[in-house]
Amino acid sequence: MMMNNNDKNNRNNNIAKLSIVKIGGNIVDNPKALETFLTDFNCLEGPKVLIHGGGAIASKMSVQLGIETKKVDGRRITDAETLKIVTMVYAGLINKDIVASLQKLGCNAIGLSGADANCIPSIRRSPEPIDFGFVGDPDPQKVNKDFISKLVESDITPVFCAITHDGNGTLLNTNADTIAYTVATALSGMYKTVLYYCFEKEGVLMNIDDPESLIESINRDECDKLIEQGVIADGMIPKLFNSFNAISHGVSEVIILHAKNLLTGKGTVLINS
Amino acid sequence: MMMNNNDKNNRNNNIAKLSIVKIGGNIVDNPKALETFLTDFNCLEGPKVLIHGGGAIASKMSVQLGIETKKVDGRRITDAETLKIVTMVYAGLINKDIVASLQKLGCNAIGLSGADANCIPSIRRSPEPIDFGFVGDPDPQKVNKDFISKLVESDITPVFCAITHDGNGTLLNTNADTIAYTVATALSGMYKTVLYYCFEKEGVLMNIDDPESLIESINRDECDKLIEQGVIADGMIPKLFNSFNAISHGVSEVIILHAKNLLTGKGTVLINS
Repeated sequence: MMMNNNDKNNRNNNIAKLSIVKIGGNIVDNPKALETFLTDFNCLEGPKVLIHGGGAIASKMSVQLGIETKKVDGRRITDAETLKIVTMVYAGLINKDIVASLQKLGCNAIGLSGADANCIPSIRRSPEPIDFGFVGDPDPQKVNKDFISKLVESDITPVFCAITHDGNGTLLNTNADTIAYTVATALSGMYKTVLYYCFEKEGVLMNIDDPESLIESINRDECDKLIEQGVIADGMIPKLFNSFNAISHGVSEVIILHAKNLLTGKGTVLINS
Repeated sequence: MMMNNNDKNNRNNNIAKLSIVKIGGNIVDNPKALETFLTDFNCLEGPKVLIHGGGAIASKMSVQLGIETKKVDGRRITDAETLKIVTMVYAGLINKDIVASLQKLGCNAIGLSGADANCIPSIRRSPEPIDFGFVGDPDPQKVNKDFISKLVESDITPVFCAITHDGNGTLLNTNADTIAYTVATALSGMYKTVLYYCFEKEGVLMNIDDPESLIESINRDECDKLIEQGVIADGMIPKLFNSFNAISHGVSEVIILHAKNLLTGKGTVLINS
């Protein structure tokens, strides 16, 4: 039997929306901004997943413990001592504080690393050309999407920190944007996944100092040109690459936006063209 | 219809055994002993839950960070700074290391605090007569036993650290023996729960320095007498009180034993009489 358009629309409507929200480290570092964000996050309708970045707390803790933070190209090198610090701070302090705050708001949150229930296995990054240490890159194909979907179907909200594991006993520090991309992509076969990258700017800006210069939508070609021109730079480049990867791998929508605009969705919408 | 004895036995046999294993801080502190223990734990048949103590790592971390560890009657006072440390060390470092190690062994572990999925809500302890700070006492009636049982029915092994929450946004440091008692008691309506208190001694000893002086079984009266005589003292007293509470509240069996004897079950068996 052929389906008419209404049937098709109904069928598409039957696929539930799943919001995958990544909150940046600068919001996590600011208790007032984090509280406001979590209140908004709790108001997001439908099933949802939160992924949080680490913020400056791990670096501060390293300084206090006399452990030198090593960076190459702005990216932290995770030696054995640094891995302990980020595991403590991301999976312990920040993750459990967020879970307790969400529970207070009535959101039944569960804090997880990628090792828990083998949710997000990773592959330790090759030491060539740069040895980043205990750093892992997750594979969307290996995500335990059955377990994550069972949680959200039970009205439980997973809260992931940016720690994964190699399945061989080693924890791995992992980029939080990449985790958000990975989870959104993995679950896009089961849900209409919408990926929100929340941080402390309005979105992708023509002038980083002018919040009015928001680029409301961007496609890959436009993005490449703006990178060439130096308008888009630094941490925004991998964030955009993760975003375009997501929409080309089945994620329905990606929005880069200020944390305060989560509920309106005002920000930069990524266009798959 | 009357049941004959065989029917009764069959019905009792239909209630699955659930092993609740608490591992003490001195084993957690020793990487080799912990590895051996986790290998044995993985071999325990049937559904199981692990609860781990904190060990000396939190105290060491406090010293490194210049935070004074305050104790009254040998019990840590948890001020705001100490709460951060124990959350980092128990819920982050130790919990995720154990989960990654169990995953390596093929045990699908999930690391949880009492805040996660509201598994173990607590009540903050009254500041009278002693203000222990951010310390919580859990209520077996409030345990999210449906969620914990769904995990074990899905062959997922919960690994609890000794952090709970008050449901109002505050994390609480909680005695790991008490958490083990609480989880075992809460689940005793659904399972034949067996509670194992594993530590670095053979069990309850007549002479603490002589592993050959093991008391193979003990009831409440015998216990009271040995406490009066000073044979049982210090940390063993609350452990025994937790144990007798457990068997008088539906837990089928409680054994206090050396971590190395988990699979043989050789230790002190608590008798409900």
